[in-house]
Amino acid sequence: MDDDVLRRGKPTVHVQFGEAQAMLAGDAMQALAFEVLTPEAGVPPALQAKLCSLLARSAGHAGMAGGQAIDLASVGVPLNEQALRDMHHRKTGALLQASVLMGAACGDVDATAWQALSDYGDAVGLAFQVVDDILDVTQASETLGKTAGKDMDNNKPTYVSILGLAAARAHAEELRCKAQEALARSGLANVEHLRVLADKVVERDS
Amino acid sequence: MDDDVLRRGKPTVHVQFGEAQAMLAGDAMQALAFEVLTPEAGVPPALQAKLCSLLARSAGHAGMAGGQAIDLASVGVPLNEQALRDMHHRKTGALLQASVLMGAACGDVDATAWQALSDYGDAVGLAFQVVDDILDVTQASETLGKTAGKDMDNNKPTYVSILGLAAARAHAEELRCKAQEALARSGLANVEHLRVLADKVVERDS
Repeated sequence: MDDDVLRRGKPTVHVQFGEAQAMLAGDAMQALAFEVLTPEAGVPPALQAKLCSLLARSAGHAGMAGGQAIDLASVGVPLNEQALRDMHHRKTGALLQASVLMGAACGDVDATAWQALSDYGDAVGLAFQVVDDILDVTQASETLGKTAGKDMDNNKPTYVSILGLAAARAHAEELRCKAQEALARSGLANVEHLRVLADKVVERDS
Repeated sequence: MDDDVLRRGKPTVHVQFGEAQAMLAGDAMQALAFEVLTPEAGVPPALQAKLCSLLARSAGHAGMAGGQAIDLASVGVPLNEQALRDMHHRKTGALLQASVLMGAACGDVDATAWQALSDYGDAVGLAFQVVDDILDVTQASETLGKTAGKDMDNNKPTYVSILGLAAARAHAEELRCKAQEALARSGLANVEHLRVLADKVVERDS
């Protein structure tokens, strides 16, 4: 949708296969996600339903698709930080949070741990986007694997354009702390991977 | 994807709101379908899972999205009737069949009735497409609510271009008979609505 020609250093799908086939690939992959969540056997049906519910609510109007629609409508519009956070909470945060909670649903976690993991996913999702905004202005296209500077060229509101680079970096650190605090609060023993993930999201350079 | 400016006599979404927002509306509505199937309460979780499974498998690569991709790739390609049927089975038939089977899943039908309803959905789905191809060449745009003659203009294989108009009409009747036979075979008592639907699909003029 940003009409970029590169993702992960490769031609984007619509550049290589045309816009219509790219759209269908997206449609088919969304359906495939629900197909994977509803196998014939091996996953209890009640868990399948819970997983589908979490994914549907995070991918759709209240989540990724809705956030992306707000993003598209915000080109050239001066958003404040609250509005920017709301947008990113939907666009990036909701699915990332859902991926954490879908893991939690497969385990046997209590309400405290569920809430903590929800907060963790929320913080990491937002941190991902803040860092994305920082990298867009600090890294070259070759490092990013996508075209750098596009957001600024497109006059899109970002954390950097609203807060400035230094404050955006401080905000990313703050979100990392929030994520780690939530993990500690979860009372769960085996959260090392999630701890590393939060660090990687903030420390990544591409 | 056919870039038509009209559907049901109204401007298409991409004409009114732009291509990007139209795409997102589609993405959000696909997710919404799964959201509707997984309510907090009122539908047993095992049934939710079954409904999600049926929808996912009929909407994705093996169903609608895959069929549409084949359709797009078939412009100017001489398909035989078998290939055309395969394409429409995915593109139109799969979702229509799924909608019937999702109803069946909510009831308590035995294997015989399930197979009969599956055959019914298959026949009605294909009939819908055969009739669509007929109407594309026999009706005016005002009646159709979309631009008539587009398939022929786009050099797309259709039942009419492959079989001729008379044979296409005969084929639609044959599919109606198949659908009604399947209903009779189902052993189900309350299938009047499905019987009427099969008739309407074949007799419609728009």
